Amino acid sequence: MTNSSSRSLGWLGTGRMGAAMAHRLVGANHDVTVWNRTKDKTDDLVAAGARVADALVQLATCDVVFVMVATPADLEEVVTGAAGLLSGPNAPGLIVSCSSVDVATSAKVRGVASERGVAFLAAPVSGNPHVVAAGGSSFVVSGPQAAFDDVAPLLETIARSAVWVGEGEEALLVKICHNLYLGLIVQSLSEVTVLAEKSGVARHVFLDFLNSTGLATDWVRRRTPDLLALDWTPTFTTELLRKDFELGMGVARSAEVPMPLAAGVLQLLQSAIGHGYRDSDFLSLFALQGASSGLELHRDVATGE
Amino acid sequence: MTNSSSRSLGWLGTGRMGAAMAHRLVGANHDVTVWNRTKDKTDDLVAAGARVADALVQLATCDVVFVMVATPADLEEVVTGAAGLLSGPNAPGLIVSCSSVDVATSAKVRGVASERGVAFLAAPVSGNPHVVAAGGSSFVVSGPQAAFDDVAPLLETIARSAVWVGEGEEALLVKICHNLYLGLIVQSLSEVTVLAEKSGVARHVFLDFLNSTGLATDWVRRRTPDLLALDWTPTFTTELLRKDFELGMGVARSAEVPMPLAAGVLQLLQSAIGHGYRDSDFLSLFALQGASSGLELHRDVATGE
Amino acid sequence: MTNSSSRSLGWLGTGRMGAAMAHRLVGANHDVTVWNRTKDKTDDLVAAGARVADALVQLATCDVVFVMVATPADLEEVVTGAAGLLSGPNAPGLIVSCSSVDVATSAKVRGVASERGVAFLAAPVSGNPHVVAAGGSSFVVSGPQAAFDDVAPLLETIARSAVWVGEGEEALLVKICHNLYLGLIVQSLSEVTVLAEKSGVARHVFLDFLNSTGLATDWVRRRTPDLLALDWTPTFTTELLRKDFELGMGVARSAEVPMPLAAGVLQLLQSAIGHGYRDSDFLSLFALQGASSGLELHRDVATGE
Amino acid sequence: MTNSSSRSLGWLGTGRMGAAMAHRLVGANHDVTVWNRTKDKTDDLVAAGARVADALVQLATCDVVFVMVATPADLEEVVTGAAGLLSGPNAPGLIVSCSSVDVATSAKVRGVASERGVAFLAAPVSGNPHVVAAGGSSFVVSGPQAAFDDVAPLLETIARSAVWVGEGEEALLVKICHNLYLGLIVQSLSEVTVLAEKSGVARHVFLDFLNSTGLATDWVRRRTPDLLALDWTPTFTTELLRKDFELGMGVARSAEVPMPLAAGVLQLLQSAIGHGYRDSDFLSLFALQGASSGLELHRDVATGE
Repeated sequence: MTNSSSRSLGWLGTGRMGAAMAHRLVGANHDVTVWNRTKDKTDDLVAAGARVADALVQLATCDVVFVMVATPADLEEVVTGAAGLLSGPNAPGLIVSCSSVDVATSAKVRGVASERGVAFLAAPVSGNPHVVAAGGSSFVVSGPQAAFDDVAPLLETIARSAVWVGEGEEALLVKICHNLYLGLIVQSLSEVTVLAEKSGVARHVFLDFLNSTGLATDWVRRRTPDLLALDWTPTFTTELLRKDFELGMGVARSAEVPMPLAAGVLQLLQSAIGHGYRDSDFLSLFALQGASSGLELHRDVATGE
Repeated sequence: MTNSSSRSLGWLGTGRMGAAMAHRLVGANHDVTVWNRTKDKTDDLVAAGARVADALVQLATCDVVFVMVATPADLEEVVTGAAGLLSGPNAPGLIVSCSSVDVATSAKVRGVASERGVAFLAAPVSGNPHVVAAGGSSFVVSGPQAAFDDVAPLLETIARSAVWVGEGEEALLVKICHNLYLGLIVQSLSEVTVLAEKSGVARHVFLDFLNSTGLATDWVRRRTPDLLALDWTPTFTTELLRKDFELGMGVARSAEVPMPLAAGVLQLLQSAIGHGYRDSDFLSLFALQGASSGLELHRDVATGE
Repeated sequence: MTNSSSRSLGWLGTGRMGAAMAHRLVGANHDVTVWNRTKDKTDDLVAAGARVADALVQLATCDVVFVMVATPADLEEVVTGAAGLLSGPNAPGLIVSCSSVDVATSAKVRGVASERGVAFLAAPVSGNPHVVAAGGSSFVVSGPQAAFDDVAPLLETIARSAVWVGEGEEALLVKICHNLYLGLIVQSLSEVTVLAEKSGVARHVFLDFLNSTGLATDWVRRRTPDLLALDWTPTFTTELLRKDFELGMGVARSAEVPMPLAAGVLQLLQSAIGHGYRDSDFLSLFALQGASSGLELHRDVATGE
Repeated sequence: MTNSSSRSLGWLGTGRMGAAMAHRLVGANHDVTVWNRTKDKTDDLVAAGARVADALVQLATCDVVFVMVATPADLEEVVTGAAGLLSGPNAPGLIVSCSSVDVATSAKVRGVASERGVAFLAAPVSGNPHVVAAGGSSFVVSGPQAAFDDVAPLLETIARSAVWVGEGEEALLVKICHNLYLGLIVQSLSEVTVLAEKSGVARHVFLDFLNSTGLATDWVRRRTPDLLALDWTPTFTTELLRKDFELGMGVARSAEVPMPLAAGVLQLLQSAIGHGYRDSDFLSLFALQGASSGLELHRDVATGE
């Protein structure tokens, strides 16, 4: 295989996340050919230096093809479908699937790819388009280790880190655990922040402190302004996090692992939906915590640290 | 008041935490006079350049006196007791109380100090002696803001940060919220890490990933080797964290704030005690999570990142 | 001691509960002398055949004195206070304390009584005035077993049962456990009933079924009309049940017993208070469960069985 | 349709539960023809007066056929399969399906039956074979109300009650809610009983009291000897109750109803499995509660009430 910097790259799926990710490769002067079902979503990338394929199957001549689509069904269709990436005589050397799909679908697509001699990496990514654009997202990757070693420089061009966790679909499991942990942190943070606020310590004061300690996270630092402004504009909705928690509790059931706190968060997400926060950002767990505390929340006009 | 670098400093209480904190001042060439009930616990500090007082009351001639004692009763005794810091004709300009005591005791001692014209800062500190020695601890401080501004450089010599949160005892409340958050994170981490491990992802692989994401914390990074080695040597015991959670739930009751997850962690701490982890580090919540999952835990010989 | 049917009985405290209880003794033709701080609350009892004492201390000549007052401080005052039951030269043979007070107060009053040679029974009672009037309440009793055996017929005249549980203050502990169990059942019932209702089974249909099974309780049967009518007129407020749960969790802490579900109910009671149900009957946990489920509750006009 | 007492009855499935139920009809002198895959399991019923069918399809000439099989797949096979009840030219007027199957399977079999003009009642039953034999079980029934009214006397011969809850599959939903409630009560009871016991009130004393109050249930009364003897011989295993809780939480998810306590019980069931109680009676939640409390449990030799 050629050096990663001279390889031809394909990018399949240029929705908001996909476009943000592809832009980081194009911006680093890689040779990227893009395709999207709705073609005009590729215009910005072309303006930035990418080429565009007329037909999905043309990406099959690229060395490496990244796939970022919305659903498991989409992944199956664009890779193994009748007009999909593997539907013609050519095939890339490697497919990097960045979508957070279920284990079964990933294993199925991997199987079809393997039969064509195509390596397959499951590489779900954390973060939202803004985080990706700022270089702050993270990959967790599973599949053949040699394939991972080969594309690691590309992944680290897109994100700030890429960690390999196994030969199979482990990356998807790890991503689910990550999202459970995210929900746990949001509810934990909501409880202690509302407690501090109702006890007389302003929200920005408490969060500034927490953001100065060994328990600080980049994520909380980044969302502190939203917590101060009570801005629940969705980056990821309560309903979507509920879906991830259901996936996670399903995995926990299969593994026979009790999850007392995570189970509690899932019920609180359901309560938040019942109280009207279905389509709000999941950070609105903070709003429910305020309401349950009988605390009328206001925007905290101080800026975070 | 003189410049902080030329002021005389007193240090009252050189147990493990107190000694580690005082060493950072001595190491920065401050003029420090120390006192401890058991005098030989001051020997190392003297060897490092500190002076030692024969009687506690001699510290009253220092400009600033730091107090780091074990219990609320100790704080009362060493400051306001018959042979305490304020028992003679002299008094320092400022007392910085670094102990995590209850609000009522802090307010009482502050009141006595104020009557003597002595400013009083409640300045509980996070971290253990190792963290303090490495400069990684954090102060949260409340009391007169001018007094805080005055000693902030000294606090930042001892710790990596010092955040002022109010004119009264707010710092103690914030410290309690911090400790609740710590327990919440440990249980949350235990749930997802055991889930990953029982599902086939090695502990060090999962923790390395988590430590690479936007949810990483310095605290978890620092404790990762202990989680891999199943090392429950106490830095802070399960029983002590239960005490902090009881304080926290008491504060929550006063404020009428429901704490669904924190209440769950308190019950799990109680279960951990029932299962024999009373005197283990509270990180042993991980061991209980493993046992409840029917997972036989082993040392993970890989090193954390 | 004389046969219970011919003994003189004193009744101290004729509030709503006390009056309902005393009426059952008067109605059974016992010789009852009553006293109450607000004398006109004894009028109905006098009309029914009771005598009234001008001064509290006059009850000291009765063989057995029942005490039903509101708070621990009241119990101390009416028994051991300067103008209390034991303040004169006479003393009854037995005091039956029906108030749900804390263990320490009960032990203290028992101690004073014992020094005067007066037997003391802690005999908290379940139920509300309506239940008492209908003969449906229950006593749990602790103190000298001989004293219990002696007054058991009187207790069974007042209530449908009287169970002896120990020589000391065990009855108060058992009462607290009972009240925890009551709160647990109300929340459990709320969860499954709202689930059935939102899934299409009318509330009265589901409750009729539950009331026909081996899990039926008299208590749920009795409250079914209130659940159908969404009638939260207080028999016992959410705030009062929160107090009992706090007592219970305190006992659990002393005994080092984790209470995962009870801890959850306490947080839900706190949430109910936050959502405005402080002074409603604690059955309003059902209303909070409905709101959290996004279910608009209506009166179910069908009658319970 | 003929009077119920003179109708011919078929009984399909004579495992432990089915046999106990059929015995109650035979014992009431009904004309019952039985069939079972393993024929010798019908011997006792034949000895008691039942007839036995050589082939399943022969039951199709009966007026009413009761079906009590283990799984949804069994129900489909014995009713709609190639050699099933509806595979020949005859068909009964009514099928009463007593198995606790999922809603989808029940609806599917009902549909096939309806096309043949056969009424179908979903009639899951509570209790175990001992309870059934003693006449203490309960039916919850859904399907055509006329069909229910018609067979209600037969159902009340088998069980102590039969409650109709809807025209469709509502009975299955209600049964799931019932089983959730059962698990909630067992954990609630375990918490308060262990609390009382560790605080010094013997288990039999506490349970005797609880069994005398308005919160008493027949179910707890019946299981009190097992709690005293720590007898976890399975009537229904922890693993089976976990399955019911998963079904229940799935229904709650569909209905978008948060179930904070039920979610907690599911995690505790999972913990009980992790601690080795998978195949024990689910009453062993009490044993886990004891272990988590650091309480060494012993048989309580006193008899329950």
